[in-house]
Amino acid sequence: MIILIQCKDKVGLVAAVSQVMAFNELNILSMREHVDTIEGQFFLRLSTDDHTNVNKLHTELKNVLPADAVIVINPQPEKKIVVMVTKEYHCLADILVRHHFNTLGAKVVAVIGNYDVLQEISEKFDVPFIHVTHENKTKETFEAELKDNLKNYQYDFLVLAKFMRILSPEFLANHPRNIINIHHSFLPAFTGASPYKQAFVRGVKLIGATAHFVTEHLDEGPIIEQQIISINHSYTPVSMVSAGKEIEKSVLAKALKMLMEDRVFVFGNKTIVFE
Amino acid sequence: MIILIQCKDKVGLVAAVSQVMAFNELNILSMREHVDTIEGQFFLRLSTDDHTNVNKLHTELKNVLPADAVIVINPQPEKKIVVMVTKEYHCLADILVRHHFNTLGAKVVAVIGNYDVLQEISEKFDVPFIHVTHENKTKETFEAELKDNLKNYQYDFLVLAKFMRILSPEFLANHPRNIINIHHSFLPAFTGASPYKQAFVRGVKLIGATAHFVTEHLDEGPIIEQQIISINHSYTPVSMVSAGKEIEKSVLAKALKMLMEDRVFVFGNKTIVFE
Amino acid sequence: MIILIQCKDKVGLVAAVSQVMAFNELNILSMREHVDTIEGQFFLRLSTDDHTNVNKLHTELKNVLPADAVIVINPQPEKKIVVMVTKEYHCLADILVRHHFNTLGAKVVAVIGNYDVLQEISEKFDVPFIHVTHENKTKETFEAELKDNLKNYQYDFLVLAKFMRILSPEFLANHPRNIINIHHSFLPAFTGASPYKQAFVRGVKLIGATAHFVTEHLDEGPIIEQQIISINHSYTPVSMVSAGKEIEKSVLAKALKMLMEDRVFVFGNKTIVFE
Amino acid sequence: MIILIQCKDKVGLVAAVSQVMAFNELNILSMREHVDTIEGQFFLRLSTDDHTNVNKLHTELKNVLPADAVIVINPQPEKKIVVMVTKEYHCLADILVRHHFNTLGAKVVAVIGNYDVLQEISEKFDVPFIHVTHENKTKETFEAELKDNLKNYQYDFLVLAKFMRILSPEFLANHPRNIINIHHSFLPAFTGASPYKQAFVRGVKLIGATAHFVTEHLDEGPIIEQQIISINHSYTPVSMVSAGKEIEKSVLAKALKMLMEDRVFVFGNKTIVFE
Repeated sequence: MIILIQCKDKVGLVAAVSQVMAFNELNILSMREHVDTIEGQFFLRLSTDDHTNVNKLHTELKNVLPADAVIVINPQPEKKIVVMVTKEYHCLADILVRHHFNTLGAKVVAVIGNYDVLQEISEKFDVPFIHVTHENKTKETFEAELKDNLKNYQYDFLVLAKFMRILSPEFLANHPRNIINIHHSFLPAFTGASPYKQAFVRGVKLIGATAHFVTEHLDEGPIIEQQIISINHSYTPVSMVSAGKEIEKSVLAKALKMLMEDRVFVFGNKTIVFE
Repeated sequence: MIILIQCKDKVGLVAAVSQVMAFNELNILSMREHVDTIEGQFFLRLSTDDHTNVNKLHTELKNVLPADAVIVINPQPEKKIVVMVTKEYHCLADILVRHHFNTLGAKVVAVIGNYDVLQEISEKFDVPFIHVTHENKTKETFEAELKDNLKNYQYDFLVLAKFMRILSPEFLANHPRNIINIHHSFLPAFTGASPYKQAFVRGVKLIGATAHFVTEHLDEGPIIEQQIISINHSYTPVSMVSAGKEIEKSVLAKALKMLMEDRVFVFGNKTIVFE
Repeated sequence: MIILIQCKDKVGLVAAVSQVMAFNELNILSMREHVDTIEGQFFLRLSTDDHTNVNKLHTELKNVLPADAVIVINPQPEKKIVVMVTKEYHCLADILVRHHFNTLGAKVVAVIGNYDVLQEISEKFDVPFIHVTHENKTKETFEAELKDNLKNYQYDFLVLAKFMRILSPEFLANHPRNIINIHHSFLPAFTGASPYKQAFVRGVKLIGATAHFVTEHLDEGPIIEQQIISINHSYTPVSMVSAGKEIEKSVLAKALKMLMEDRVFVFGNKTIVFE
Repeated sequence: MIILIQCKDKVGLVAAVSQVMAFNELNILSMREHVDTIEGQFFLRLSTDDHTNVNKLHTELKNVLPADAVIVINPQPEKKIVVMVTKEYHCLADILVRHHFNTLGAKVVAVIGNYDVLQEISEKFDVPFIHVTHENKTKETFEAELKDNLKNYQYDFLVLAKFMRILSPEFLANHPRNIINIHHSFLPAFTGASPYKQAFVRGVKLIGATAHFVTEHLDEGPIIEQQIISINHSYTPVSMVSAGKEIEKSVLAKALKMLMEDRVFVFGNKTIVFE
């Protein structure tokens, strides 16, 4: 059983929670706690080896915690995601393979692409692919069509796996699910388009990738995971793209793992990730 | 304030501890807990923002914890170490510099060398250097002289910073302090002497270093920290030694930091390190 | 055009080669040279921007190089591989995805499994899967059946992608192709079976994976690529296996990339990898 | 013997150079070549096992290479550096220790500080320390005093080892030596002051350091070396500074090693580093 709690910090929160656990004869197998001392916010994730009456436990925790406490017990165990893509296969294929072998921690309920390039691979894994082109239409129309299609699915996260269109603030504001993006640079370096070209011109010795929540400010949402690899003078923008794909795939996989295991809190523009 | 607790695991330990904290109006700023579920052992480290009556707190914790519980509150804040060396300067100099600028978290009370090569650098930093040669004497005599000299100092840890003599099981058994060693390989690969030569012959693509507690079984004590660096076919044993020094220095520094900040538990032949 | 040369070292080899190139108006775009000064062996890889009469070039190089020189011009551009597996999907699926999108640098002509678990994923990617069980038969019979099946395919490399049976020295001696294995530890630490269990018992802080050529001495062939990831006390053997899969996949992908791009020389029990 | 060559690229350059080497009975032990195919520029570094008449060799190379070729044979073997600092000791102490044990590949001829905090450590290592305060004077006056002091020393590189004043374009333009800076972030992320504070606010999961040549555009000169370390939500700006120091020290040490071993070419705003 996983329990997540977030609230204003004060003395006695861990005691309050752990007493409830002990009272229910639940052994705490692992507990991670963090206090943002600047903002005075408390975050706790714990796992126990045992099941109990979840509603009763929720009530008991609510009774001992501050009124603002957000308590989640056993978050949606089999999560569902929709993946949006453009033409690049590497992140999607990695997700589909894990989905197929039940190691993603989530079910991929649909793939939406603004090109049809990745239809074949999606369908190989028996995942419905919806082709919504952005061509010859306004952004409004394109996004309205995306929404129409998304309406047909129940999902917890929308994963932008190298989806190369910028979603409007309106789309984001009206989208009630968490949206995750993989950006092909070490943010905040090289925001916007063509980060590898920018990296080439600047002559950097490392390139990176960043998985983050999408907010209305492009490339500025809370960062979940970042990794880098070393490059050198022999890399062209083309070979950077190729090397970068390995790291993009790896970063997105790690971020999704953290999300699917309920290890990520968002607070302000930052994440707390209890690895 | 730092509190460390280790005992047999059972339901309610976190509750018991955190209640005591709450009762004393102590806010828990960070808490790391680990249960070794195979051995059924409980480990906890917490930091609070406030001071209180330490003896009273200790008693209160003792009262609510199992009889076997080891409780340490505010472990020795200014630790003391003795460093033993042979001829290589890189680890010692790194330690002395941190000592000098008060960022080691410990005071270096003495350096003992079986050669006098590092006397000058030790004395530059006003640390007494004792030259105890191993030449022309038995191991028993050598170690008896070491002990005689060590007797003159109060210290918490004996740090073997590239001390290239093997200490006898007798010496170790009779030495009541923790002994830390930096081994120049990624243990358990390449135990014993000349690990870089072994690494060269085997053609590995990574070399590493390991900081570990010293036990009577050579190179087999509990591991505190390990790091590696990439190498390739162009490395000779000599350039491996040179590259390895950077990683040895870094691994030992990290291990000492963890130790000085009281983040390391030993249990059986393993460590729990709450980074 | 790629040119690979290996021979006994002597003065003037680079001059001899580069003169032939210049004479043919071929610009050298990149050149990597290594001399094993202990063994006195010379290795060279160069790429040029231009094509020419390969036979003529070969003859001209032969004329200026020592008699023992091994000269390869434009090694098999579209390589072919057979993959052998047991039950774990992660390495195979990664290879199949790259194969499908033409980024492997090789064509997977067949997959052989001693279980049929991975038949479905192979066939999804239109790669023939042959099930050769090892059960209820001698090792001789098993290996004879493997050989019978392998006979039906043309291939450059046999890739053991988590194939969990040990091949006999006879099989290896009579197999005229390069065999590549992914071993789930940082060799030479933890050879043999259950390396993660060994790593758990030893309490290491890093786990790794090694891609190597297979020789008759188990886990002792020339190493092509190694990588590691950090772990800590919270890892069980099970979570080590899970974390290890990511690194196994990555190490094998990197080793195959090096091989497919003709960047790997073998000499004695070591490799020279011109990344 | 080390030979460095840079010139416009054309067919036959390697042949020309290696013929001269062969003619002089010089065996090429290692050779690194790079062609910037976009700019058409050729870079070569080679080492040979043998000495010869350097002037004669220079002339012979000049005769076979294009008129624009920059040829350096055996660059200044014992380089000299001046280090400029403010208050932080970690980079300077690392440099002084290597200097003292003759492993820096350079002699530190002087340290200049705008505070006197690091006078003691410099003098411990018998390196003259000059205190040039920036307080109560214009930037022009401050820099004029720096120049006056620098005039007294012969040196190849000016190393800014956490020198926290911005040098004016005039100073840089009139300073005929290479200036190296260590910047405490992964450039181009977080340029300017307080990069760790910026990193904290942005919630990044990695922090880095960058060693680069100083040009008139702040933080935009050619990058020599970059490294990063992982951080998480538990880091404050203060603990980031502390963790960052380890990486700053390491990056600067690596960059200086590359420079002292003559492995760095500058071309446009980039470096070619033949590791």
